[in-house]
Amino acid sequence: VKKEELHASLSDPVLDTMNFLNEVTSRYPDAISFAPGRPYHGLSNVNEMSDRIGRYLAHLDERGHSPQQVRDALYQYGPTAGQIRELIAGSLLVDEDIDVSPEAVVVTVGSQEAMLLVLRALMADRDDVLIVSTPCYLGIVGAARLLDVAVTAVPEGDDGPCVAELETAILAERARGRRPRAIYLVPDHANPSGATMPLDARRALLDMAERTDVLIVEDSPYRLLGPEPPPPTLKALDRACRVIHLGSYSKTLLPGIRVGFAVADQEVVDGTGRTGLLAHELAKIKSMVTVNTSSLSQAVVAGSLLASAGRVSQIGAELAGHYAGALRATLVELDRRLPAERRAALGVAWNSPRGGFFLALTVAFRADEAALTRSAKRFGVIWTPMAYFHPEGGGDRGIRLSISHLTPADITEGVARLGRFIEAETVRR
Amino acid sequence: VKKEELHASLSDPVLDTMNFLNEVTSRYPDAISFAPGRPYHGLSNVNEMSDRIGRYLAHLDERGHSPQQVRDALYQYGPTAGQIRELIAGSLLVDEDIDVSPEAVVVTVGSQEAMLLVLRALMADRDDVLIVSTPCYLGIVGAARLLDVAVTAVPEGDDGPCVAELETAILAERARGRRPRAIYLVPDHANPSGATMPLDARRALLDMAERTDVLIVEDSPYRLLGPEPPPPTLKALDRACRVIHLGSYSKTLLPGIRVGFAVADQEVVDGTGRTGLLAHELAKIKSMVTVNTSSLSQAVVAGSLLASAGRVSQIGAELAGHYAGALRATLVELDRRLPAERRAALGVAWNSPRGGFFLALTVAFRADEAALTRSAKRFGVIWTPMAYFHPEGGGDRGIRLSISHLTPADITEGVARLGRFIEAETVRR
Repeated sequence: VKKEELHASLSDPVLDTMNFLNEVTSRYPDAISFAPGRPYHGLSNVNEMSDRIGRYLAHLDERGHSPQQVRDALYQYGPTAGQIRELIAGSLLVDEDIDVSPEAVVVTVGSQEAMLLVLRALMADRDDVLIVSTPCYLGIVGAARLLDVAVTAVPEGDDGPCVAELETAILAERARGRRPRAIYLVPDHANPSGATMPLDARRALLDMAERTDVLIVEDSPYRLLGPEPPPPTLKALDRACRVIHLGSYSKTLLPGIRVGFAVADQEVVDGTGRTGLLAHELAKIKSMVTVNTSSLSQAVVAGSLLASAGRVSQIGAELAGHYAGALRATLVELDRRLPAERRAALGVAWNSPRGGFFLALTVAFRADEAALTRSAKRFGVIWTPMAYFHPEGGGDRGIRLSISHLTPADITEGVARLGRFIEAETVRR
Repeated sequence: VKKEELHASLSDPVLDTMNFLNEVTSRYPDAISFAPGRPYHGLSNVNEMSDRIGRYLAHLDERGHSPQQVRDALYQYGPTAGQIRELIAGSLLVDEDIDVSPEAVVVTVGSQEAMLLVLRALMADRDDVLIVSTPCYLGIVGAARLLDVAVTAVPEGDDGPCVAELETAILAERARGRRPRAIYLVPDHANPSGATMPLDARRALLDMAERTDVLIVEDSPYRLLGPEPPPPTLKALDRACRVIHLGSYSKTLLPGIRVGFAVADQEVVDGTGRTGLLAHELAKIKSMVTVNTSSLSQAVVAGSLLASAGRVSQIGAELAGHYAGALRATLVELDRRLPAERRAALGVAWNSPRGGFFLALTVAFRADEAALTRSAKRFGVIWTPMAYFHPEGGGDRGIRLSISHLTPADITEGVARLGRFIEAETVRR
């Protein structure tokens, strides 16, 4: 049988990274896993779903939609840009002080689709480059690979993306004759490091973006999952229309419904000289990717926004408390198992995020796939090599821990196992 | 304010084609519209949706899933390739005699996403070409534009795709040094022409694909929407594993849920020499496009398949009757308004599909956007210029009529208006 040849992107390690992890996880089902970024949804029940849909349909009815129109809203193809844009724009205003017209919003199949749309719209030329702050969420790198978009990685610091380094990279790309179009980053409780950008760094980043004429793609899935509100979003601080803001309801409402959005109020011009809103162009691309976001899923989101007067922060408050508690417990256990003196001796360190799913550990040995296999097999604990999140290399001694779906008992026992693994590996070295 | 430059695909007329039509439709709201391919869903009601979801959850429970696993199936991220692949494979077997393993199925956000995934996987090289039978569904051409994939159009005949012409085009591309990788076509009740390929043409196409070593992408959204079953799918006849079959539940179940699938049981090899199933590679790409198909939407499809023992043909039977009736009524009215002698004098002709949404009219004048505007404004009737479906030019005297969402009264009055418009335009010429 003849074997069909594939596009080069399918040989790219980025698109295969998670395979090894999945294999390890299924081979050692009894191991405690700090690996997956699965949201916790123990606070939801099945009936809630239809309540939320009902809430949205009642809202349409109250606003004078005919029974036929109400049914269409649930059953029929809707506008490609989404049918709940007004509710999302309203929510962004009350919750985030982001003031944009519904026309600037595009509803997407999770923020992953939004990334693909933004890259396809903006990366106009072979010489265009996307700058990413690393360690970096793999979804953006994978989307870039699929579209043959060049990516340049800039290492972050302890407080997340480093503005001076980003500017240096932008100027270096220009000097090479390439055109940096946008910087992708996650300012709040980043995946994978857990870092959150301080307010002054946010302001400096916006100034730099304006000065160097690049756009910022702000991805914010973990933003509301902390014990207190983080500094304002880049979009809320954006005076020069430099920021494309991506949002997701996967972590605050439900992962399975697949609803995210892009806020893209930039003025754009196409090759024929026609101008318009970037959001409109994103919708044009979406019409050739998924056509619509499931109207059933949009109805669930709409019902939730209506029930909370648009305050996603309020919907997510209980969940945020859950995650913050799990993070605190993990940090307490780490400190108990590897107290300051011991970790200095072992060459181990970690950061202390207050929210989100992730924290970053540094160890004195190569935390690679071989080490992960030993960790799963002999110590019964699984984690993610930080090297996975460095598309251009690096992170060999880094470990990502995700606390998002572990019970308190799992955390206690998991950290104990992790401590034993680290001790053994460090001696082994 | 600086305007951001866009990717060249966004200046492509294909991505803008429907804009004019939408404008005309909103400018003349009282016109009867034969334009949109909107499915009819008057046979569904809101409660059905939760019944179907409940049916699926009960099925999981019966199969020994824990309450947590059942909740996960609805709320959590699921496998990227989809969580209802077994049910879909089972349905394809009972309904279509397509015998494939669930591993060869990938659940997608409508068949549009499947098209994008297939193109990205297979079009490995700048010299690779996609062959399309025209007039052609625009979604495939748009997806090709987004991915910078070259498309070659081959005109279809009265009975749909023309095998000899397709083979000539394949050989001509090879002679030019390009590599035709796949042929895209809709064998059943095609969009836009309504044509259905006879059985002998299907067999000839499969032989030709094997002889010339190209794959076939079979898109089948309208297949079950006729008064009797059409000839077997290309996939059911496929002995040499040449066919990638795309399916959609948008027309048989509900458009708004956005669930389709690809069947891709081909053996493939990537640049590193690793081999596997094409379906697995499509899922890898999907993980960077939409991650998952809404699990809520998948649950609705699963519940429907369970309730009908996998027979989508049975679920769609009533709808198929509705469409067949609307088609017959349209043909009867056309014949009444423009009897044989009159249409010979006017230079008008049409085909007579027995199922699906569409039929094709040929007229003696340019059926362009100017003509459409006159038709809407003076005669109160809207249709789609066939030229929209010819990405490489042609179809200037063609009109697509869609009957999918019109009432009998609309059909009678709409055809009368259309007759008056055609008479006037022909005289005008």
